[in-house]
Amino acid sequence: MSTTTNLPAVTVLGLGPMGRSLAGAFVEAGLRTTVWNRTPGKDRELIERGAAGAASAEEAVAAGELTVVCVVNYDASDAILRRDDVTRALKGRTVVNLTADTPGRARDTAQWAADHGVGYLDGAIMTPAPSIGTPEAVFLHSGPRDLYDRHRAALEVLGGTHTHLGEEIGRAATFDIALLDVFWTAMAGYAHAVALARAEGVTAGELAPLAQGIAAILPPLFETFAEDFDSGSHSGEINPITSAVSTMAHVVAVSESHGIDAAVMRAVEGQARRVIGLGHGVDGYIRVAEVLGRH
Amino acid sequence: MSTTTNLPAVTVLGLGPMGRSLAGAFVEAGLRTTVWNRTPGKDRELIERGAAGAASAEEAVAAGELTVVCVVNYDASDAILRRDDVTRALKGRTVVNLTADTPGRARDTAQWAADHGVGYLDGAIMTPAPSIGTPEAVFLHSGPRDLYDRHRAALEVLGGTHTHLGEEIGRAATFDIALLDVFWTAMAGYAHAVALARAEGVTAGELAPLAQGIAAILPPLFETFAEDFDSGSHSGEINPITSAVSTMAHVVAVSESHGIDAAVMRAVEGQARRVIGLGHGVDGYIRVAEVLGRH
Repeated sequence: MSTTTNLPAVTVLGLGPMGRSLAGAFVEAGLRTTVWNRTPGKDRELIERGAAGAASAEEAVAAGELTVVCVVNYDASDAILRRDDVTRALKGRTVVNLTADTPGRARDTAQWAADHGVGYLDGAIMTPAPSIGTPEAVFLHSGPRDLYDRHRAALEVLGGTHTHLGEEIGRAATFDIALLDVFWTAMAGYAHAVALARAEGVTAGELAPLAQGIAAILPPLFETFAEDFDSGSHSGEINPITSAVSTMAHVVAVSESHGIDAAVMRAVEGQARRVIGLGHGVDGYIRVAEVLGRH
Repeated sequence: MSTTTNLPAVTVLGLGPMGRSLAGAFVEAGLRTTVWNRTPGKDRELIERGAAGAASAEEAVAAGELTVVCVVNYDASDAILRRDDVTRALKGRTVVNLTADTPGRARDTAQWAADHGVGYLDGAIMTPAPSIGTPEAVFLHSGPRDLYDRHRAALEVLGGTHTHLGEEIGRAATFDIALLDVFWTAMAGYAHAVALARAEGVTAGELAPLAQGIAAILPPLFETFAEDFDSGSHSGEINPITSAVSTMAHVVAVSESHGIDAAVMRAVEGQARRVIGLGHGVDGYIRVAEVLGRH
């Protein structure tokens, strides 16, 4: 435990699969770790491995200099943190909330923390529970830089890469939401594609290598489209949105000819057609992003 | 031209940006190349570079052993190929149709070709016009293997990689449609994510590097999900679909709180909730693909 003697005592609130992985990583690294969960019994295996249990959330947070929260959403974290005795016990300590929710909820919680003398960092975990403690884990953080620097070594015990995205407390949740938006939409496209391929007699195993090729062309396009969007240019010289919609219409037609739900591609096509209807048909596809946000 | 003396005379029908690139690559490689377009004038620059013009489509196809077609869709290619004089001129020759459309249209055209003694290959071009003649070009082909092998050297003049996906004539179009499904759905997710990030004060340039990280985790998931789908297993042990939908709901809520159209993610969430409603909530997300195709 010589490498961790300077690290703070930590508390983990919430012992779902992710919370247990976080607490387990702290225990493995030799940090004094106190754990608590709203419904009892989830702490048993962690206590066997060396964690301390606690009879209440207030007892748990009083035992740690740094409290890491990982519950289902901010309704759940509010229900734990904003009880008077817990809030009192947190005064002068730091909370890192790794619960997933919206940027607005993160800002609201930061205000509550400021009102009660609690140090507050917000964070997001971008990788599944088994990644915790391994190089694959990806953590995003936001909030006061000095507070982050003070607890950085303890957080890095959780493995992987930790990125501080800035002082604005909503940034971790904003990146989290935006990245999950990309992820789940892309996965929906893939799920639909394998359903459509199967209906045409092509297995997912046959499609997968070429789908991986499509995934490989996304990163440079993401960069080009980011430049276009930030600069307000939307050149469609190589691939105007009018040509994209005819492809989208083919996907819908083939899909529905097999009785496969095409609601996602119908929505994608609808947004592209709205852009054309507004007179931007010669622009590139990224014009969609600008039109989506118009009021 | 010593390397191309064994290559056939080729004809290119359709001189949009893609057709011009294809014809240009044949000309550059020294193949005797005849070009034709429904509306006149598009052949001028190619003729200056050494291509032969033609007064009609039948004259054009009579000049080439191999005719490459690249027009807007199969309505357009039918209107050219299925006129009696053109069909007669094509007898004993080979058509490679690189026009994008549905697998059904490819099969229908193969039947027409068989009925009239025309050799027929169907293909798809997965990369934009400027890629033609470069290593970046990606071509998919399907149809009789011997016919493909006979014309392979001429097709490879177009650059990049050429993959013969099998004898079933609809396969090139099936892969094309399925891959474009993945591509445009993923791009829709990215366009939405940058709109959402902007509303929360994060630029696309800030988001892009992390979005590229998300694109990088897709290929191994595509492989795992393909195995799950083909084998009929849909394990959600690490990430059950019930946990995915709460993320999707966050994306919708943040998006709509800013007045940003969330129709695509609403459709993604709706499909996931249908899976849960059918009793598959503990399964992994790929269960969506199976439910999408249920009748």
